[in-house]
This record gives sequence, structure tokens and C-alpha cells, in this order.
Amino acid sequence: MVSNGPEWKVNVPEDTLVIEPALPKRMCIQLQEQILKSLMNIAAFLVKARNIATSDPRKVIHGVKVGMALSLVSLFYYMKPLYDGVGGNAMWAVITVVVAFEYSVGATIAKSFNRASATFLAGSIGVGVHWVANQCGEQLEPVILQASVTILAAAATFSRFIPSVKARFDYGVMIFILTFSFVSVSGYRVDKLLELARNRVSTIAIGTSICIFTSMLFYPVWAGKELHNLIYKNLERLADSLDGCVTEYFKDNEERVNRKHEGYKFVLNSKAGEEAMANMARWEPAHGRFKFRHPWKQYLKVGASMRSCAYCIETLSGFINSEVEAPELLKKHMKEVCMTLSSASSNVLKELAATTKTMTKSTKTRFFVQEMNFAVQSFKSVFEALSKQTLLLTEHEAGEEKTSKETQTVPIMAIFPIATLATLLIEITERVENIVVEVENMAAQAEFEVENKPFKYDQDQVIIHP
Amino acid sequence: MVSNGPEWKVNVPEDTLVIEPALPKRMCIQLQEQILKSLMNIAAFLVKARNIATSDPRKVIHGVKVGMALSLVSLFYYMKPLYDGVGGNAMWAVITVVVAFEYSVGATIAKSFNRASATFLAGSIGVGVHWVANQCGEQLEPVILQASVTILAAAATFSRFIPSVKARFDYGVMIFILTFSFVSVSGYRVDKLLELARNRVSTIAIGTSICIFTSMLFYPVWAGKELHNLIYKNLERLADSLDGCVTEYFKDNEERVNRKHEGYKFVLNSKAGEEAMANMARWEPAHGRFKFRHPWKQYLKVGASMRSCAYCIETLSGFINSEVEAPELLKKHMKEVCMTLSSASSNVLKELAATTKTMTKSTKTRFFVQEMNFAVQSFKSVFEALSKQTLLLTEHEAGEEKTSKETQTVPIMAIFPIATLATLLIEITERVENIVVEVENMAAQAEFEVENKPFKYDQDQVIIHP
Repeated sequence: MVSNGPEWKVNVPEDTLVIEPALPKRMCIQLQEQILKSLMNIAAFLVKARNIATSDPRKVIHGVKVGMALSLVSLFYYMKPLYDGVGGNAMWAVITVVVAFEYSVGATIAKSFNRASATFLAGSIGVGVHWVANQCGEQLEPVILQASVTILAAAATFSRFIPSVKARFDYGVMIFILTFSFVSVSGYRVDKLLELARNRVSTIAIGTSICIFTSMLFYPVWAGKELHNLIYKNLERLADSLDGCVTEYFKDNEERVNRKHEGYKFVLNSKAGEEAMANMARWEPAHGRFKFRHPWKQYLKVGASMRSCAYCIETLSGFINSEVEAPELLKKHMKEVCMTLSSASSNVLKELAATTKTMTKSTKTRFFVQEMNFAVQSFKSVFEALSKQTLLLTEHEAGEEKTSKETQTVPIMAIFPIATLATLLIEITERVENIVVEVENMAAQAEFEVENKPFKYDQDQVIIHP
Repeated sequence: MVSNGPEWKVNVPEDTLVIEPALPKRMCIQLQEQILKSLMNIAAFLVKARNIATSDPRKVIHGVKVGMALSLVSLFYYMKPLYDGVGGNAMWAVITVVVAFEYSVGATIAKSFNRASATFLAGSIGVGVHWVANQCGEQLEPVILQASVTILAAAATFSRFIPSVKARFDYGVMIFILTFSFVSVSGYRVDKLLELARNRVSTIAIGTSICIFTSMLFYPVWAGKELHNLIYKNLERLADSLDGCVTEYFKDNEERVNRKHEGYKFVLNSKAGEEAMANMARWEPAHGRFKFRHPWKQYLKVGASMRSCAYCIETLSGFINSEVEAPELLKKHMKEVCMTLSSASSNVLKELAATTKTMTKSTKTRFFVQEMNFAVQSFKSVFEALSKQTLLLTEHEAGEEKTSKETQTVPIMAIFPIATLATLLIEITERVENIVVEVENMAAQAEFEVENKPFKYDQDQVIIHP
């Protein structure tokens, strides 16, 4: 079995060459390895946690805020006078804080509102059903209660599948089922039903108000602001990706190491996050530069138009990384127009990002869009100039050699990469124009301010693209 | 103000022409309108709910299951002997059922496990902390308890931001904080702490077992099976979209009404759903044809490779719907090779879908991939045949008219659309090959069965692509 060939040595792990130790020692070694392994896992976990903490300290602050809110609410337990007021039900305030305290203010308000209103609604219906059941006699009472719980729970659970309910009231429906079962089932035993209900409502009020105030007053994280930032950062990412892709394509081979253009991947996957944030943002009061009825839904449309553009950039990036290469001559010929077109598109995107970031309608946007359209036109005219050298489709009469010393010939396959690049770039400009429309709608709906100083045309710049 | 021009009539709603009635009557009309409006909203909501119910009756069944589980657990309240056993704590069993009963079996097990283990862990730590605090004297006790709640809650809340914790234990961490606060805070008053803990554990055990059994025994919805179905249906969607796009491109203009090729949009947005299902599927026991350690993570890789292909199809679809049109002559020339290539790719996708659906390794896949590669080669050779008619890049010497009566000329811009189509189709075949690799990995990891009857080559079919 044992061979001395060098190939053999390569394939076998080192410790098989060691003489096997006795069983207890082997177990000891295994145990040590296991412990070492789990220690390393824990270390890796801690490193990951530290990285998250350093990259976004607000997440640490959120943890501290939850701790603060909890110790605030637990004061109801420790302080004699407060405890006497609320009694053992203070537990429900603690539960409310733990359950309803979310990362963003919007989510906290949504959960608090859901919890409070669902508890109140379910409590009232529960008491009503209980009263009806009580009137029907001792025999029928459990039957009616049981049937009402079953039917209402089934209907409410089903309603969670309806998108409009799921988006805004998912948690509320759950609390409704919970409270209704609670009241109608426990009502059978607990006689002081109304007092229980009153206590529950007051403790939940304490819990939700602690939640909302803590989340709003100490380093608040507004879902709306997060969404706003995400949108303009994604616009910047798209602009960088587009620039990066085209620059990389026209670079010399050795230099292709820059991965800056991967930002579009982030845009591709931001749909779920955007929708969640928009849902939460609708619950938030006016904050910073955002009014109460800020058009958050329009942000989703901007997001969708950006994703559509990102799909195209993804294809462009895949195409740039593929092996098909245009001949150097053609590449040189096309470099300038391609770069001009892509930088015109990315200028529009950057301007949109600035518009969104500063919330001021920019007079430059229209200019940049025009410049982009000029670039498309001059791009097309370069190709039309090329097209004077027509392509001959002689089907079967491919006779007469036309190549001579004076003319440089390019096979038709060679222009494919450039043609694809051109079509993709033009498609991207169309999708960028969609983004412009959506951002302008957003600016109109959100009543962005108009820029004070009007933008002066740089004459030289205009002359370049007549 | 009032003009009789017809333009004016168009812009004003009809009822402004009616003479205004007295105030009470107006209010009455407004009220009627409001009621009518809300009735119509309710009707629309009900129609939507009915549509959801008819399109997926399992959602209704889920509602019924929750109702059943709740009435089962509330029996603990109504039946004297059971009630005496568990006491007023039966409420916790009800809460557990409401909170932990999810749509899929995996999610229910995950929540039940999270709830049970987090309660147990937090309970033990809470009792420990309580004992330590008790030893430190009456003065220090509340301080220690308060500090431990604050610190542990802050740390645990922060840990929810770590992706690996969030994916599997998000709910557990919340329950941990809840139970720990509960035990350490209420422990200050309630002396029978251990009895409380024992009661809590037993009621949660009752609740979770009712949840798990109801969800597993009556019309179970397995997250794993859902994910499996989603993956093969998405493969079919991609195949249909690809076929649809290319067919539509080569159709006559009038016929372009078929929207069958929009299935790829579903694939674009399936990331979040796939990840959630894979996370739940890991909790599920063996069911149907799926073993306990089925490689659910590999399904995510298949999903990612499919999305990469879908991005390309999205670009293709955008390009097909754009106004740029290739000349009819070229289109006719290219129709056959393009259709062959796209149908070869979609055959591969369909075969992969069949492989996944039936969970049997298909001997045909390799054959179809080969056929696709043949199609790429013959596709390229058609273009190379075209390239014998070389394109002249005469830079400045664009003299001598080469167009003569015998040859049909095509301007270079005209081949752009075809060139783009070709590049995109070839890019799509490359991405399809990625999907093949990922599906084969999946088949190997999940130990798909090997097909019994070996696939017989259809000689005629092979001869077409030598």
C-alpha cells in the first residue's frame, strides 16, 4: 500500500504518517481540536460583530436604547409607589417594550400602533362576545366562545395573506388574535374581565409611549431618511458602475484590476429593503426635511427605474468581462465617443443623486439630459460615417477580392463587440431618461426647493457637442 | 367666469352644473357618497381576498388550521381536569400557539424551537442572576438586576444585526430578552420563581407540540417543497421567456401581442423569497422525497445563477421592444440560426427543470448542452461566412463606389441590432451553462436518482448539427 512516489505524498494529510497514539490520548487530542475549533468559531463571530459595530455604530446605539427603555420600564417594578399603581400587570409594559421596540422610528410607531389598536379592538369584541355567551346560559357559553375564537382566528389569519393587510397590519392582526383568544378564553374563569382590560390598556400605553419616546429622542433612526439616503447613494453607485465598466473596457489589459464598478449589484438587490423602509416611513411624523405626507411611494418608483437600469449595466459588465474582444483599431476608433456617451449618462445620474440628496430641483439636470442626447446623436453619427463604407451582402457572389494595400480590413464578426457595446450604452441612456422622469415626479410631489442661482451654460462645453 | 365653449364642459365634473341644494341635503349627499365609497372599498377588498383564496386554497386551510390549534389549546381552559393540571398558566400555551404557528412547517418548527430554547436559556440565566443578586443583600439586589437586564438586553439586541443570528435565531433572541426581563424583574416580587419557570416550560411545551403536530399532520406546507417547486418553475419560466422573446422578435409586427415572455420578471424578484424558504427548510424533518440534510443552500446558488441569466433576458427583452429594427433581409437571413440557438438554450433549461422536478439525473442534459454548443458554433460560422464579405475601414480613402447592381448593400448601422441579439444570445448560453453546473452540483449533493432507461440519440437530430 505504501509507496514512496512523490505523488503519493501530496495526496495524504501529514498526520497519517504519525504512529497512532492510544485511545484516551486520541480522544484527548480530538477534544482539544474540537475546543480549538469552537474557540476559533467564537472568535470569528466576535470579529464579525465588531466589524458590524464599527461600520455602523447606530446598531450598537440601538442595543443601548433597548436596554435603556427596558430599565426605564422595569422601574415600575422596583419603585413601590409606581408598583402599587400598576400592579403585577406591569409585566405587560415590559413585554410591550421588548416586542415593539424596533430599529427605526417608523417601525416602532407601526408596531406600537398595531399593538395598541389591536388590543383595544380585540378586547372590546372579546368582552362583547363574552356578554352574549353569558346570556345564552351555562351550557352554551363554552360552545359559543370556542366557536367565536376558532372562526375569528381563522378569518384573521387568512387576512394576513392579503398584501395590503400584510404590509401595514401584519403584527396587529396577530395581536388581535392573541388578545381575543386571551379575553374570550380567560373570561370564562376570570370574573374581573373589565378591570383586566383596563389594566392591559394602561400598561400597553405605558410600554408604547416609552418605546416611542426613547426611539424618537435618543439618536433616532428614521426609516424615511434611510430610504432617502439609500436612493441617492444607489444613484451614485449606478453612475460609478457605468463609468467604471466603460473605462475598464477601454483600458489596457494589464490594468484591469479595479472593481469599483460593482456597485450596481447592490442596486439589483435593494427591492425588498426599499419596500420595507417605505412601509415604515409612512408611519413617521415630520422629521428633518421630510413632511408628514412625503411621497414615499414615489421613491419606490425611482427605485424600480434604477433597477431596470442596473439590469442593463449587469449585462454590460458581463459582456465586458467576457473573452470576446474587439480589434484594437476599432476600439481606438470608438473609445472617445463611447466614453463621452457613458460619462454623459453618468453625469445625469450624478446630478439626479445631487438633486435627491440636497432636495433642490436642479436647473442643471435638463442641461445634462440634453448633453446626453447630444452624445447619443454624435455617437450615432460616428457610426453613420462608418456606414458609408457599406457592408456588402453578396450572398453567393463573394468573388473579387476587395482588400488592397491601402485599406485596412475588419471582419464583420469583429464589429460585434462594439455594436453590442453601442446598443447597450444607448439602451442605458433610455433607461436613465426613465429615472430622470421618476426623480422629477418625486421632486414635484415632495415639493423640492428650486435652486437659487441659475445655472450658467459653459459655452465651450456646448460647442463640443453641436 | 362661465363660458359656453365645449372645452369648458370637458373639464368640469357634471354635478357642478346642478343647482346647489340646501346645506343639510348636501351633507346628506356627501355622507351617502362616503358610505358608498367605503362600501365599494370593502367590496374591492373582499374580491381581492376571494381571488387569493381561490388561487391558493392552502392559505384558507392555514387559517382553519390556526383556528383548530387554538380551539384545541383552549380546551385546557374549558375542561376542568386539564385546567386543574395546568392552571391559569394555560394562557401561555394559547400565546405560544398564536405566535409560533406559521404558514410552513419549517417556520413553525423554527419558531417553536426558538421559543422553547430561548425561554429555557433565559429562564436559567435569570434564576442564576436572581440568586447572585439575592446573596448581595437587599440594597444591591435591584441594582444588580437592573444592570443585568440592561446589559444583556443591549447585547442581545445588537446580536440581532449579525446576519447569521438574524437568519436563524432572530425570534429566539427576542424571546430571550423577554423571558430574561420577565424572570429577573418579576423575580423581585414573586417568590415562587422556580415553580413559575416550571409552569412556563410545561405550557410552552404544550403550545409548541400542538403547533408542530397541527402544522405537520393536516395538509402540511413544507418550505422545502415550496422552494423546490419555485426553483423548477423558475427554470421553466426562464425557458418560456427566452423562447417568447426571440419568437416575438422575428414575428411580423402586427402579431406582437403575446406577453408570455414576462416570466423572467418573476425570477428577477425571487431572491428574498428563496432565502427565507431555504432558512425555514433547514428546520424541517425528512418529508416526501427530501432527506433531513437536503442541500437547501445549493438551491440558493441555482437561484443566483438563474437570476444572472434573467438579467440578460431582461436586457434582451428591452432591446426587442425598442424601436431599433434590423432590415428585413438581414432578419430573414438570421432568423433560423437565432431561433435554433435560443430553442437549444431553452431546451437545456427545460431539461434542467425536468431534472429538478422529477429529482432524477437526466442523461439528456449533457446531450442538450452539446446541442446548444453546436448551435453556438453553427451560429458563429454563419457570421464567419458573412465576414468573408469584409468590412472596409478605409479611414479617409472612402473613394471608389463599390456598390453595384449585383450586390445588395446593407449599411453598417443596420447590422447593430442583429449583432446585439447575437451577443446577448451567446451571453445567455454562457449563463445557462452556469445554471447547468449549479443544478448538477445540486443533483450530486442531493443524490438524485439516475434515470433508468438510457437516452437514445435521435440520429436524424444529431445529423442536423454535425
